[in-house]
Amino acid sequence: MAKQEKLVKAITSMDEDFAKWYTDVCIKAELIDYASVKGCMIIRPYGYAIWENIQKIMDGMFKELGHENVYMPMFIPESLLQKEKDHVEGFAPEVAWVTHGGAEELEERLCVRPTSETLFCDHFKNIVHSYRDLPKLYNQWCSVVRWEKTTRPFLRSREFLWQEGHTLHATAEEARQETEQMLNVYARFAEEALAMPVVKGQKTDKEKFAGAEATYTIEALMHDGKALQSGTSHYFGDGFSRAFEVQFTDKDNKPVHPHQTSWGTTTRLIGAVIMTHGDDNGLVLPPAIAPVQVVIVPIASHKEGVVEKATEVCDTLKKVCRVKLDNSDQTPGWKFAEYEMKGVPLRIEIGPRDIENNQCVVVRRDNREKIFVNLDELETRIPEILAEYHDALYNKALSRRETMTYDAKNLDEMKEIADTKPGFIRAMWCGDRECEEKLKEVAGVTSRCIPFEQEQIGDTCVCCGKKADKMLYWGKAY
Amino acid sequence: MAKQEKLVKAITSMDEDFAKWYTDVCIKAELIDYASVKGCMIIRPYGYAIWENIQKIMDGMFKELGHENVYMPMFIPESLLQKEKDHVEGFAPEVAWVTHGGAEELEERLCVRPTSETLFCDHFKNIVHSYRDLPKLYNQWCSVVRWEKTTRPFLRSREFLWQEGHTLHATAEEARQETEQMLNVYARFAEEALAMPVVKGQKTDKEKFAGAEATYTIEALMHDGKALQSGTSHYFGDGFSRAFEVQFTDKDNKPVHPHQTSWGTTTRLIGAVIMTHGDDNGLVLPPAIAPVQVVIVPIASHKEGVVEKATEVCDTLKKVCRVKLDNSDQTPGWKFAEYEMKGVPLRIEIGPRDIENNQCVVVRRDNREKIFVNLDELETRIPEILAEYHDALYNKALSRRETMTYDAKNLDEMKEIADTKPGFIRAMWCGDRECEEKLKEVAGVTSRCIPFEQEQIGDTCVCCGKKADKMLYWGKAY
Repeated sequence: MAKQEKLVKAITSMDEDFAKWYTDVCIKAELIDYASVKGCMIIRPYGYAIWENIQKIMDGMFKELGHENVYMPMFIPESLLQKEKDHVEGFAPEVAWVTHGGAEELEERLCVRPTSETLFCDHFKNIVHSYRDLPKLYNQWCSVVRWEKTTRPFLRSREFLWQEGHTLHATAEEARQETEQMLNVYARFAEEALAMPVVKGQKTDKEKFAGAEATYTIEALMHDGKALQSGTSHYFGDGFSRAFEVQFTDKDNKPVHPHQTSWGTTTRLIGAVIMTHGDDNGLVLPPAIAPVQVVIVPIASHKEGVVEKATEVCDTLKKVCRVKLDNSDQTPGWKFAEYEMKGVPLRIEIGPRDIENNQCVVVRRDNREKIFVNLDELETRIPEILAEYHDALYNKALSRRETMTYDAKNLDEMKEIADTKPGFIRAMWCGDRECEEKLKEVAGVTSRCIPFEQEQIGDTCVCCGKKADKMLYWGKAY
Repeated sequence: MAKQEKLVKAITSMDEDFAKWYTDVCIKAELIDYASVKGCMIIRPYGYAIWENIQKIMDGMFKELGHENVYMPMFIPESLLQKEKDHVEGFAPEVAWVTHGGAEELEERLCVRPTSETLFCDHFKNIVHSYRDLPKLYNQWCSVVRWEKTTRPFLRSREFLWQEGHTLHATAEEARQETEQMLNVYARFAEEALAMPVVKGQKTDKEKFAGAEATYTIEALMHDGKALQSGTSHYFGDGFSRAFEVQFTDKDNKPVHPHQTSWGTTTRLIGAVIMTHGDDNGLVLPPAIAPVQVVIVPIASHKEGVVEKATEVCDTLKKVCRVKLDNSDQTPGWKFAEYEMKGVPLRIEIGPRDIENNQCVVVRRDNREKIFVNLDELETRIPEILAEYHDALYNKALSRRETMTYDAKNLDEMKEIADTKPGFIRAMWCGDRECEEKLKEVAGVTSRCIPFEQEQIGDTCVCCGKKADKMLYWGKAY
């Protein structure tokens, strides 16, 4: 098969240079192109179709839980950004500033939104007056800007696409439930749509969102053993609503500050998929978000009846999946490599001999397993094979994560693992920020999360040796 | 009924103050809220749900014709914007400039995209090399910024949402066909989704898009007799591709500059719907884009069986339309006024006596006509009534446009009509830009379009009296 890939466009192998492999996949699978603005990317049709599938599924999950979409302005006046102290400190160093409209200098600078808490609060102040107006369950799909120094396609770019949920509740408890619920939605989405196992947990104070009381996260492990924060959900208490003077009268006619949440996922999820499932032949897409789930490649298509049969198969499959017939004049070998690069889950080969036997060959992208399927059974078999394929991707990623998860008891162990074994490191922590900073300095790892599923793997802090009752995931991260 | 509206929130009547009526509808129907950034708007859930319906239908029409969605950066470097002379002249005076990233001043200013021709060309240069790479049929859904002096919700705001199609073709003819095809798509969308009749035609040179060889438009007539440009499609020839050095090798292996189009519609369409169908009770929505097509209001809902039957009706109707049951503790009168304000096409009233008769009352939003429908026939009757409703809205708008379209033979007639009769004015034109400018100065009208459907209503120019063979639509415009 080695020759086959060369027919199209070879990519760097993972082992040779993982970072190069990653950008090669982004470019050669036609997900992105670099833009004339440094640190921004062009999302090409194939990449954007993946994002549209992500949006469609996730948006449905949000709406099912009663969330409504809105659209806020992309600009935030400087004075508005400054209203919540921690928030502005966190974001001001990395925003893009608009200073002129046409030839005129603006009276007040505007930043391009890096996130929209301040805008939502400003709006909530106008529209929330009574307990009858709550809860507000809002979401927004948009682009945001953060002026990063070093950038990589999907993983960290100056502009990226995302969704940001913003909700407002009468009580702290209800807001906390929402924060947790949305984290669970993200975890379920990662597993069911992206075939990507995640660890759910809470961020330490050091790692939480600027202005939040608590931040929850889903953390995934990439092929190279680095962690990728894949979605976060924040509980704000009433901090923002006090800063922005949002209040409502409760049932007893008393003024109360409502409690708030926000939660977000981004085009980074596409990067997560690439680095979770991809291989040296290119992209490997989970069926739920694959723009094309099945590609049909006719073999010896000049022979009578082949194209007709392939077309017939395509028409049949349209009812049950996203299918494409490639009837171009490229060779089958070229097509095989092309659709492997693009991560299409299943390829159907159909030629004269198959037609004689009333069958076709279904080839899985992940392991190139060949499955012979009777043409009369395609409509039921293909969805089954796609479901099996999803499970196989998930299980493979899960067992890789398990293999690459290590426990450390003390600083020496932590350093040794961090130096030699890429992956997650589980270790106990006393809760002291100094220890967290020291681990970063000494072992180069950051705390990924305090997982909800705790396991007492010791009782002393991996760093200082003092009493510790929290087990954390640590690692190097994107 | 007059009392009923007062229960909710009265709005200014159209006759009293049309502009105030318009903004009242925008606010009271909860389509928008004003933002802290001057000239920007917050699109609230109900307004955004309308936009989502517009997007869904239009996106389907684009994709059916082979267009693919992409996402370009929101920033354009100043040097890139300047590459096409006419284009930069048209847009530079009204763009927002980003000058700083965080605390650092940028080496080159970036404008927030007012439109993305320059970005697409820059990308096309990278990806188009051979005739095999053509055509490129791209579309983008995003927000754009134009630093307008005077703004109005949906109609003219500093930031707005839109789609911009950008296509690249091997030949001028193919590009011209695309330009025309997309204008026809817009016209069909206006008629079939918005129930809004439009005049299709070409813009004069004075009114065309900055950098285009030809601009085509659909023009609609609002309730107050003003014209609204509702969608445009541009043919660029190879001007942009020369300026951006986009070229491909044709079948004879010769380098050729491809031909280009772009076409766009915006959230302005929501403004068009408000001012085409709305009335003194609020919004009137065409069914295709109405977030709620049918609202069910139980009457005497404390009586046994009413809520149950209303729920049953709601469940039945879910299969055939977007239906909502309002079971809140507000009075029926309050609900009637509320959903009239929000322009819900049909209201179903169901009370104890209706249940006894196995029927319900369907009330049309536009004329409050009551239709008694047997409960067993709802599933077939409601879609029929919605279709009739769409046609009724369309026909009413069309006949209003016809009534408000006048012919002018000379400058005196033109002035008199423009001064006294709001609406479209049809008049012959010699093709001279000076006449166009004089008509603007003297009669306050601009050329709306040179309609495709020509009618020879004279043979001399309405302005200068010289020979003229083009009939134009003129008017005051938003």
